[in-house]
Amino acid sequence: MHKKLFIPGPIEVKEDVLSKMATPMIGHRSKDASNLQRNITNNFKKLFYTENEILLSTSSGTGLMEAAVRCCTKESAAMFSIGSFGDRWHEMAVSNGVNADLFQSELGSITTPEMVDEVLSTGKYDLVTITHNETSTGVMNPLDEISKVIKKYPDVIFCVDAVSSAGGVKIETDKLGIDICITSSQKALGLPPGLSVCTISERAVEKARNVKNRGYYLDLVQLYDTIKEKDYQYPSTPNLSLMFALNYQLELIMKEGLQNRFDRHLVMAEYTRSWAKRNFALFADEKYASVTLTTVDNTQNISVKGLNEELGKRGFVISNGYGNLKEKTFRIAHMADLTLKDVKELLLNIEDILSIL
Amino acid sequence: MHKKLFIPGPIEVKEDVLSKMATPMIGHRSKDASNLQRNITNNFKKLFYTENEILLSTSSGTGLMEAAVRCCTKESAAMFSIGSFGDRWHEMAVSNGVNADLFQSELGSITTPEMVDEVLSTGKYDLVTITHNETSTGVMNPLDEISKVIKKYPDVIFCVDAVSSAGGVKIETDKLGIDICITSSQKALGLPPGLSVCTISERAVEKARNVKNRGYYLDLVQLYDTIKEKDYQYPSTPNLSLMFALNYQLELIMKEGLQNRFDRHLVMAEYTRSWAKRNFALFADEKYASVTLTTVDNTQNISVKGLNEELGKRGFVISNGYGNLKEKTFRIAHMADLTLKDVKELLLNIEDILSIL
Repeated sequence: MHKKLFIPGPIEVKEDVLSKMATPMIGHRSKDASNLQRNITNNFKKLFYTENEILLSTSSGTGLMEAAVRCCTKESAAMFSIGSFGDRWHEMAVSNGVNADLFQSELGSITTPEMVDEVLSTGKYDLVTITHNETSTGVMNPLDEISKVIKKYPDVIFCVDAVSSAGGVKIETDKLGIDICITSSQKALGLPPGLSVCTISERAVEKARNVKNRGYYLDLVQLYDTIKEKDYQYPSTPNLSLMFALNYQLELIMKEGLQNRFDRHLVMAEYTRSWAKRNFALFADEKYASVTLTTVDNTQNISVKGLNEELGKRGFVISNGYGNLKEKTFRIAHMADLTLKDVKELLLNIEDILSIL
Repeated sequence: MHKKLFIPGPIEVKEDVLSKMATPMIGHRSKDASNLQRNITNNFKKLFYTENEILLSTSSGTGLMEAAVRCCTKESAAMFSIGSFGDRWHEMAVSNGVNADLFQSELGSITTPEMVDEVLSTGKYDLVTITHNETSTGVMNPLDEISKVIKKYPDVIFCVDAVSSAGGVKIETDKLGIDICITSSQKALGLPPGLSVCTISERAVEKARNVKNRGYYLDLVQLYDTIKEKDYQYPSTPNLSLMFALNYQLELIMKEGLQNRFDRHLVMAEYTRSWAKRNFALFADEKYASVTLTTVDNTQNISVKGLNEELGKRGFVISNGYGNLKEKTFRIAHMADLTLKDVKELLLNIEDILSIL
């Protein structure tokens, strides 16, 4: 039995989108391949509200997050973390020998604009990383307010991990001044995993040209230059199957309408949050609760593992807490193409299981 | 109209294999995900004739080639090239700041065991890279003879690019003493692009543990340790769709029988070579002509571009020469699940087109 996924990636993929994964192969140096990537780019520019170039990488979001910090840091990176995925970004810098300092907020809290201002005002940093939506805690950082502070430091390259938010929440990349905004296929975009995508500003590319040892496969300059020189083709063979599905899914997203899609995500989030508050508590400050997943504080001390086993028998999966938050929290993702009806069905089943557990 | 691919990747993928790409998603931290990867590993160990561990990477073959040289070189890498893909491996080392020297053979020739012996006898190198099958020239290196020489230097990590040969030609990894044997999904394995795979010896892993700045996404140690600690799961979300298709395809390959599969490839190669000799000439020395693709020397000075356009109208695609060999050669891939019947049909069409061009 297939279990409907309410986990923060991989997510439930619509059948018609899945079927595009089975599209017969084409040459990756063909005109068809160029057209495919050009269509994808045009729709991504709309989704990211940007005029900047779009890069695809056949890797998970981790690949492009590593690429951004490795390729665009010359001096030192200021890396703000509100949970496991923010910490991981710092590990990526360290493992590449890139100078980087980690600024952690308490779990469940945001990166405050004041923190960012204080850190950047030292003048030590030429790149800053911000997690938009932290999948471990269910906290969504106030990008608007943070970006206002970062704009005071025009020489700093601004990178955002939007892996679990892009496609579910409006991110006005250019208005916010984001140089590199990263996401991946298996979250709010509603596709299987295997492809990551980022926006990249001209100045980030130019900066990267002066950074040594950027590597090869995850070198943003090579990706950028190749799509420019080879008419939207890639240095290595890309994941064409996912590109077919992505192209189709982006058309569906545009048909739904971006604002409608963002509204649908908010409706699901608000419904889940109020359910969580009635039955448990929110782990995050509600003001900064994520729009794409809800991390529920397990105030009832239920067995999350037990709940998930029972849910599994009924054809649903949710996520246990991440890392140290296991059993202390559980996570319900409400992103991509799930609807309020799906969310209601899941929550009714959880209530039913809890009443008999 | 779909064009049947006789290019050296992406290749023609069987319909039932393609349909597995549309398998609904599962959680990548589930038991099902562990079982999937364990099955894949078991069959890859047979295909690579190895007891060593198998690593998958959601990247093209380039990703794992870069990973091997970056993670396992402490002193310096001796990189033998017989064409563009060998040269590219050296670029990967350089772009990571890894000490490496490039030893090129003339285009169309092999890496001789004598060359390797002379280079390694200097004692300067702790890693060696060999291209098994060079996709640009259609030359297949004599791995057997080369490996005998490399065995004289037991402290050297032996890496092989088998991207365009594994699955079509027998490679006895353990018998040859290969530490890291790399391939990717979109060549003789018969799958869409997006996943690469390698064997890795214990000693290569232990060596890598002492190498600094191995990076994150392409860190072989992290990949290795995570599958050991997390029961065949990966640090980042892997390309599950390709894993479903790969698992299915490996079962089909085992059903066909490895030796039968290798024999089928040889029959297609011999037929194509004798056709090429009758009509044009072989670019490679026949003794070392590739078993998975044939690079034809364009002695008739035909327009390869024109030929391919006409072939396209009939539903076939071949490859022009690679890089500087464009129009001077053309390439016919005969790998994965193509049969002698397919090859005959293609060659008859080429003959027909040439007679009326």
